[in-house]
Amino acid sequence: MIMAEAFRLGIAGLGTVGVGVVKNIQQHGDLLAARCGRRVEITTVSARDSSKDRGVDLSAYDWVDNAEDLANSNSIDCVVEMIGGSEGLALNLVRNSLSKGKHVITANKALLAHHGAELAKLAEDNNVSLAYEAAIAGGVPIVKALREGFAGNDVQAVFGILNGTSNYMMTAMRETGRDFDEILKEAQDLGYAEADPSFDVDGDDAGHKLALLAAIAFGTKPDFKSLEMTGIRGVTAVDIAFATELGYKIKLLGIARRVNGKIMQSIQPCLVPENSKIGRVDGVFNAVQVEGDYVGSGLIVGRGAGEGPTASSVMSDVIDLARGINVPTFGIPANDLKDPEWIDQGETVSGYYLRLDVLDQPGVIADVSAVLRDHNVSIESFIQHGRDPDQSVALVMTTHEAKQADIKAACDAIQTLNSVNAEPCLMRIEPLE
Amino acid sequence: MIMAEAFRLGIAGLGTVGVGVVKNIQQHGDLLAARCGRRVEITTVSARDSSKDRGVDLSAYDWVDNAEDLANSNSIDCVVEMIGGSEGLALNLVRNSLSKGKHVITANKALLAHHGAELAKLAEDNNVSLAYEAAIAGGVPIVKALREGFAGNDVQAVFGILNGTSNYMMTAMRETGRDFDEILKEAQDLGYAEADPSFDVDGDDAGHKLALLAAIAFGTKPDFKSLEMTGIRGVTAVDIAFATELGYKIKLLGIARRVNGKIMQSIQPCLVPENSKIGRVDGVFNAVQVEGDYVGSGLIVGRGAGEGPTASSVMSDVIDLARGINVPTFGIPANDLKDPEWIDQGETVSGYYLRLDVLDQPGVIADVSAVLRDHNVSIESFIQHGRDPDQSVALVMTTHEAKQADIKAACDAIQTLNSVNAEPCLMRIEPLE
Repeated sequence: MIMAEAFRLGIAGLGTVGVGVVKNIQQHGDLLAARCGRRVEITTVSARDSSKDRGVDLSAYDWVDNAEDLANSNSIDCVVEMIGGSEGLALNLVRNSLSKGKHVITANKALLAHHGAELAKLAEDNNVSLAYEAAIAGGVPIVKALREGFAGNDVQAVFGILNGTSNYMMTAMRETGRDFDEILKEAQDLGYAEADPSFDVDGDDAGHKLALLAAIAFGTKPDFKSLEMTGIRGVTAVDIAFATELGYKIKLLGIARRVNGKIMQSIQPCLVPENSKIGRVDGVFNAVQVEGDYVGSGLIVGRGAGEGPTASSVMSDVIDLARGINVPTFGIPANDLKDPEWIDQGETVSGYYLRLDVLDQPGVIADVSAVLRDHNVSIESFIQHGRDPDQSVALVMTTHEAKQADIKAACDAIQTLNSVNAEPCLMRIEPLE
Repeated sequence: MIMAEAFRLGIAGLGTVGVGVVKNIQQHGDLLAARCGRRVEITTVSARDSSKDRGVDLSAYDWVDNAEDLANSNSIDCVVEMIGGSEGLALNLVRNSLSKGKHVITANKALLAHHGAELAKLAEDNNVSLAYEAAIAGGVPIVKALREGFAGNDVQAVFGILNGTSNYMMTAMRETGRDFDEILKEAQDLGYAEADPSFDVDGDDAGHKLALLAAIAFGTKPDFKSLEMTGIRGVTAVDIAFATELGYKIKLLGIARRVNGKIMQSIQPCLVPENSKIGRVDGVFNAVQVEGDYVGSGLIVGRGAGEGPTASSVMSDVIDLARGINVPTFGIPANDLKDPEWIDQGETVSGYYLRLDVLDQPGVIADVSAVLRDHNVSIESFIQHGRDPDQSVALVMTTHEAKQADIKAACDAIQTLNSVNAEPCLMRIEPLE
């Protein structure tokens, strides 16, 4: 076999993942050459501070202070964008690189969730690839699985645990019985959560990833703005204890699913059976399940973040491109991507977990039950532990399948009852296997 | 995007999987065209009996009685070999098709386990692909994951549940408490096991798959003949009950692992923690776990057999080839595949489960313990239920890590004791997470 010319990378951003990629290429040079049929070389790097010690030897590479210069370099076949952010420098660099006929590899889910359709078109027009395995679920090769491995399927659903921070927190809350704020602080001390945790715990990060998965699954333009999104801040230790008692775990689930020919796309904490495949995925692990008309279901589990796993996914893209593999960004030509037709989520049907904070008085249960009945919501089970007359107690119900609009209207009505103290806590029950 | 010419398939063999592929292409024509950038067409089919009703309309395709003729057809870009068997017609067809510059897709693990290195070379010399996603673990896209998704890793191990029939039986034995023969008959009645089950329950099927996974993982020639292989016939209801009591499940595991720079490759029933990721995979599901130096661990779970899942994997190959994706058969050029250097399995180290059938007499435990001690095997735990003086009882031990050669020598010595009635049952304990 004749060795082709080296595949030359320019790396923009030398944080954890960028450094992981540099290490991988330095360490696995011969292995990569054997697998790609050509050498993989870093020619140029760029980051904010050239004097910082990053624990890797960068002396063999050209340094540019302005990452945007990578787009114009003649010694780069592929720009690896590890800068982050959906606008500004990252967006400019990716746009310019594609326009100049350079492949782009990125781990930047925000960028693609917001500008994916435009950038996919730009890549195609310039006959280059826009690759992003590392943008979704860290080391889990879900883009490849969904876009290639399951490509013979009409996909009905793709869903899973897409944010490791949230999953770590949900797991720790369950194992320790402690509440959100306490576990968040611990996660921050351990480096699993950022100082400003909102991106992880409010669902944006998982939402960006889900928007991309939905685009691949359904051949639609990524649409982050239409996502229904609820984070995990409202999940209390009390809810976790009740869920456990009922045989469930609470997971922040991203779900994209075809319902009656339309698409549902949501991020929300859900109750899943504790022995389901997804329910068993704890800690910092991510898991994505795909349901297709031929394959049935397929599940992939792996580490959702960190230098090694994320670099592994970046390298998967590097190797693909060095091997000459070019797959449309979202699985079909950019011009064929449709505007998704979203389902009115109020019309979706599900079982629900409902926790009320009520005064322990005669008649409360009768009042609540009547409201639910009047809104076509049927109670499946019911728990109230202990008695505490005239004090505040938790009243927990699970419902049979109900329309979201109905149960939300019921919750609004329940909140107006005198014996109900606070906003009800409402979560979907996903009957996964 | 300009549509290229159609990608034309000739299908040899119209059993369950072949028919599944025909259905998929008939049903998903437009979807496939969008994903591949060209139409996928079946031009020619071949099977033993042209008059048989297979539940699909074959009238639009040319029929040839002799599958070997597909290799010479001018209207075929890719031969899909679904005939089976490691020699004879399947081997001739694949050899001739590759020689004539046609891509080949096959689900034939036996063929590749025996002739993989030769056929990979032939494919390469003729600049075509030999694809086999469906040969390993049904609908699980493990070839793609290992050969592409995790290609940035130096792989330390690949292991898992590779035979659905065995896993169904192990699961059913555990759930019902019944013994091997009874469950085998039930599996045969349900169509999960063949009339002659040896291929599944004696490990050959899993062995063929493991030989291919090891080749990809380590860049070595597939070597089925060197596999250490033990099937599940020796696993009794008694063993399953003891394993359960100890917190384990018994799974037929295929394991390929680097140990001290050499490679271990084995199929054997092992005890795995019941809450480990692999331990939780029950029934007809398959699961493969990959351990790499960057990704840590990745797990893929899905249906291991059946028309839909297996057709899904064949279609993954079809789509790859129609998209122009060509990856070396075993991940690196065929000429670079090394002869694997196998570890002497006697030197491998593991904890063990050991069940003895002994006479319940004073001194038995002392005798057995002494033999183990003399062979450097240290007992971790010990169970004997009830007493039954002078009758046969089960004595179960787990050991700390011991060399396989030592514990096998100990078993040989134990078997010569007067109080020991039968050959000891010995299984590895795999401390998976």
